[in-house]
Amino acid sequence: MADAADAKQTRQDSGKAGLDSLLALLGDDMKRVNEIILEKMQSPVSLIPQLAGHIVGAGGKRLRPLLVLASARLCGAEGERQMSLAACVEFIHTATLLHDDVVDESDLRRGQATAKALWGNQASVLVGDFLFSRSFQLMVSDGSLKVLKLLSDTAATLAQGEVHQLMTANDTETDETAYLEVVRAKTASLFAASCQVGAQVAERPEAEEEALRRFGESLGMAFQLVDDILDYTAEEDPKLGKSVGDDFREGKITLPVILAFQRGEEAEKTFWRRCLEDQDLRDGDLEHALGLLALHNALEDAKTRAFAYAEDARAALAVFPEGEIRSALLESVDFCVERLY
Amino acid sequence: MADAADAKQTRQDSGKAGLDSLLALLGDDMKRVNEIILEKMQSPVSLIPQLAGHIVGAGGKRLRPLLVLASARLCGAEGERQMSLAACVEFIHTATLLHDDVVDESDLRRGQATAKALWGNQASVLVGDFLFSRSFQLMVSDGSLKVLKLLSDTAATLAQGEVHQLMTANDTETDETAYLEVVRAKTASLFAASCQVGAQVAERPEAEEEALRRFGESLGMAFQLVDDILDYTAEEDPKLGKSVGDDFREGKITLPVILAFQRGEEAEKTFWRRCLEDQDLRDGDLEHALGLLALHNALEDAKTRAFAYAEDARAALAVFPEGEIRSALLESVDFCVERLY
Repeated sequence: MADAADAKQTRQDSGKAGLDSLLALLGDDMKRVNEIILEKMQSPVSLIPQLAGHIVGAGGKRLRPLLVLASARLCGAEGERQMSLAACVEFIHTATLLHDDVVDESDLRRGQATAKALWGNQASVLVGDFLFSRSFQLMVSDGSLKVLKLLSDTAATLAQGEVHQLMTANDTETDETAYLEVVRAKTASLFAASCQVGAQVAERPEAEEEALRRFGESLGMAFQLVDDILDYTAEEDPKLGKSVGDDFREGKITLPVILAFQRGEEAEKTFWRRCLEDQDLRDGDLEHALGLLALHNALEDAKTRAFAYAEDARAALAVFPEGEIRSALLESVDFCVERLY
Repeated sequence: MADAADAKQTRQDSGKAGLDSLLALLGDDMKRVNEIILEKMQSPVSLIPQLAGHIVGAGGKRLRPLLVLASARLCGAEGERQMSLAACVEFIHTATLLHDDVVDESDLRRGQATAKALWGNQASVLVGDFLFSRSFQLMVSDGSLKVLKLLSDTAATLAQGEVHQLMTANDTETDETAYLEVVRAKTASLFAASCQVGAQVAERPEAEEEALRRFGESLGMAFQLVDDILDYTAEEDPKLGKSVGDDFREGKITLPVILAFQRGEEAEKTFWRRCLEDQDLRDGDLEHALGLLALHNALEDAKTRAFAYAEDARAALAVFPEGEIRSALLESVDFCVERLY
């Protein structure tokens, strides 16, 4: 899972341009959010800022906090609340990344965990717990029970999605419905909450809250689908070459594989089972998998689904008047899917 | 840490009698708490109730929820709030145990295979995250920002203490101050919060809240010190034989070792460093360590400190009128230290 997270990071950076408008409009707010993040990850226990700084400082582009700030701005929120809630959402995300780093001895034996020693496991779990607790402290100081309910429900949904994903790993019988449930829970739910909380801070009518929630959820679905597609197509983009096939090697069951498996003949199903379930990988397997994905149009059909979610995200913003923030949010949708071109 | 938890469990069971009065007085409330625990650990993702049920069902004695209920009763609380908050506290504790399964190499907890052994590190981490999120959902439905602040601060303190303990492991330079800080954070803080939340539910004056907090914190300190002492003396109790020396083999730096190390000559320090830092263990090392602990009166002096915390816990209850609940709480202090006889 950690490999997937790294790969995601690489891809985000590759598409950075698409967020320039948001970053330009919200630069000052983001500066404040970054200050809060740095301030709140401090602890007299030195390993905490060390390790948290390593992953926070690794500098994702803070897409989720950016969504909180943009949604709040779109709804005309004033004041500081959205800054600390944006930091809170980033802490939840960072804790998830740290816990995704945790591997099993079996993985260690397979040599998939390279740098991950047991110390790494221990520190990742406990520092993740600390950041997760910190995120709740930030919510509590915000003081809104409505926000607390939204974000604690989201945290439970996230964890549930991660466990569900763990259960579908290496299981080629996983169908599209189960896959979409996992994506909705582990990725789209935090995107949705990030956008919804912005409307809650501005105390806007239910309709706008719901519109932003739908925008975030559809954006999150598109974002993850695109990520899972890029894991097989990144070779088209030299910048991303290093990450192609990570999901395949890990035995992750993503939409392209699900479509190809279902459309394949028995011999192909046997191939997928050997690679993804038995994780018995041989030279040329990835190339053969890519051939099967092409044969069954699996990547193209997965793209079609991603584009549909992106279109739904755009449509959700229709209830808001035209303006530079709305345009910038629409650009962020383009940024998400343009990574496929 | 998990090993210590295993040993703790065993020892709790050995001293069960000391909690009988509390269990008799609060049996109906505990029944309700157990119902809430079973209800709230459900999830459509089947691995969650499976794994959570394995550790929750293993049936610790629910000491922390019992403290919530007893404190609430002592303060004359009515209604149902304390039941769900007691379940909430148990979820926080259970999440910690699940994450300890990853942190430690333990194979057995309460004589059963640990969650990790059965389902793997990742499942332990992610289901722990789910239970932790659930605990926050329970706090949020309780709806008191005061309670939310207390318990979210406590969760952060707990995580910080676990990381701090990770840093002191295998470090013979760890001094008594650092050791006591770790115990206060990783054990006493949740005992303290469990008792304090009972007073908060009853909306009692600050003085009673503080008294119960102090009771819980001192009880927790005594509880952990006794645990760490028993890890070297449990052989005196055949029932506990299997757990003697676990901390020694893990290279955990606990108070008895700190006292013996500081009082030892250079040759002894070299011995402790080889065993605890290099973890280069040979036949007879544990016996030699026990000899050094006796030579320097380390276990006796550690017991003296544990008894002092127990006495402070008893004293903290003086502000409350005599009554069966207060007596039962005093018995729970005896239960904690009588494990040393």
